[in-house]
Amino acid sequence: MATLSVPNHVPPVSEDSERLRKAFEGWGTDEATIINILAHRNARQRTTIRQVYAETYGEELLKSLEKELSSDFERIVLLWTLRPAERDALLANEAARKRGNGVYVLLELATTRSSRELFQAREEYHIRFKRSLEEDVAHYITGDYRKLLVPLLTAYRYEGPEVNSSLAHSEAKILREKISEKAYNHEEVIRILTTRSKEQLNATLNHYRDQFGNAINKDLKSDPEDRYLTFLRATIKCLTTPEKYFEKVLRLAIKGLGTDEEGLTRVVVTRAEVDLKRINEEYYRRNSVPLVQAIKGDTSGDYERMLLALLGHEN
Amino acid sequence: MATLSVPNHVPPVSEDSERLRKAFEGWGTDEATIINILAHRNARQRTTIRQVYAETYGEELLKSLEKELSSDFERIVLLWTLRPAERDALLANEAARKRGNGVYVLLELATTRSSRELFQAREEYHIRFKRSLEEDVAHYITGDYRKLLVPLLTAYRYEGPEVNSSLAHSEAKILREKISEKAYNHEEVIRILTTRSKEQLNATLNHYRDQFGNAINKDLKSDPEDRYLTFLRATIKCLTTPEKYFEKVLRLAIKGLGTDEEGLTRVVVTRAEVDLKRINEEYYRRNSVPLVQAIKGDTSGDYERMLLALLGHEN
Repeated sequence: MATLSVPNHVPPVSEDSERLRKAFEGWGTDEATIINILAHRNARQRTTIRQVYAETYGEELLKSLEKELSSDFERIVLLWTLRPAERDALLANEAARKRGNGVYVLLELATTRSSRELFQAREEYHIRFKRSLEEDVAHYITGDYRKLLVPLLTAYRYEGPEVNSSLAHSEAKILREKISEKAYNHEEVIRILTTRSKEQLNATLNHYRDQFGNAINKDLKSDPEDRYLTFLRATIKCLTTPEKYFEKVLRLAIKGLGTDEEGLTRVVVTRAEVDLKRINEEYYRRNSVPLVQAIKGDTSGDYERMLLALLGHEN
Repeated sequence: MATLSVPNHVPPVSEDSERLRKAFEGWGTDEATIINILAHRNARQRTTIRQVYAETYGEELLKSLEKELSSDFERIVLLWTLRPAERDALLANEAARKRGNGVYVLLELATTRSSRELFQAREEYHIRFKRSLEEDVAHYITGDYRKLLVPLLTAYRYEGPEVNSSLAHSEAKILREKISEKAYNHEEVIRILTTRSKEQLNATLNHYRDQFGNAINKDLKSDPEDRYLTFLRATIKCLTTPEKYFEKVLRLAIKGLGTDEEGLTRVVVTRAEVDLKRINEEYYRRNSVPLVQAIKGDTSGDYERMLLALLGHEN
């Protein structure tokens, strides 16, 4: 359910690398070629292009791109060109230091990557920042957000299909109890959400709904002003229906005056090779407007062209 | 600083495998051969022997050993034969379900393995138990132990030499404050101990001692009856001077009437390929009796012979 489109016959890496180099030379930059190549290569192919480019021209491809491009187009091309684990490490570092809404970027990383991908981002974090991801997050972020985020980010969840249904029953009951006591940050709530496999959690939340009448996120809407509660609902959404979570990020990024390019870029770049097709469908279902059309109305120039290319919508 | 001794000329794997098979055949078992081979092969070599044995005889080597051996000798040979990550996963599972003193086994795993080794144990845990390590630990263990153990076990600590000395100062001050308030389970204490690199932590604790007069573990001795405080001191010992921690486990295992074979086996098996030589030295320094002599006085038979072989002391 990726939207990335890779041509059936990909040219040799040396050719991609040479065409990119030519796109940077002379007056101006040939953005169309950059999009044409990079937006149509998968992560492994982009990494090989970077290697060959650096060997051939004695300069990192990312460095060349940085020199030639600017603003939103620069950011989307740079983020896209990185390996997913490198990109996640970078986004996580920015997010930890930004605090505020950064917690949502960290939440996405913690809950919508596979267990192995999350671990690979932690490995990259060591290499790039000489510290651990959890070290920075626990240092910069405090209170209830920290209580929930650090175990989410350090988890290595089991990913098999096994479900223990008596456990689902007993843990649904614990969740219900803590929610009725408004103990939303209770360590048992955090334990269940941060350690159980997604399959197990799903069984628990299904049982919650069957047994207690409401979906858990409905019961977590008691106080619309409570920002931690909003975050807790987002956590549950990310763990169970990530396409709905991402649809909402896109919707809010596009809606109203101006665009939140950061959110738009992040979702498109991180999901294009994963599940952007499904997010796209969810967007249409929820807004009755195709995502591509909404993006066309809200962005322009090379940035717009890059977004559309990653969405699989070339002219 | 391993005590494991591997001969200069290791026989071909097929020969090791055949000799082991012969040791199991006929009346009785040839324990000497089992020790002679397995106690003198490193982890990689033992794994290859297991592969070749299984291919040749259609039975797992561990299964054959289980059939032929019994009691303490069986346990030490089985644990030793496992790959370190497999063994850690197994020990951790036993420990989580045992609770009680199991927390110390979990503590050892969390603090005395490299970041990568700890992660590999978590991978093996998935494979063997179809759940995550942290899931079981957080489920079975509660209260302050859980608060400290889960982040210790899920950490992926940075292992570089970099030290931030102003951070060491400010975090020494936080530790001091919380200790004077007797807030030993405070989330900031837990954050510092569970996320900082060992080098950074060492700098912080050195600064603590210089600035406030006592080693931190001295200040943590306010209440000798408080079992969580004992655990907290062990955590700091494991993180900073693991050889002293393991010396104490051995000392308590051997001391008095009867032997704690479980602790003795665990320390010898898990450290023989790592730092048992250093633990050995520490044992002599602290007890004025060589560890080998203490073990001879307290154990017997094949179990004794296996321990001594792993300690590099054959007849």
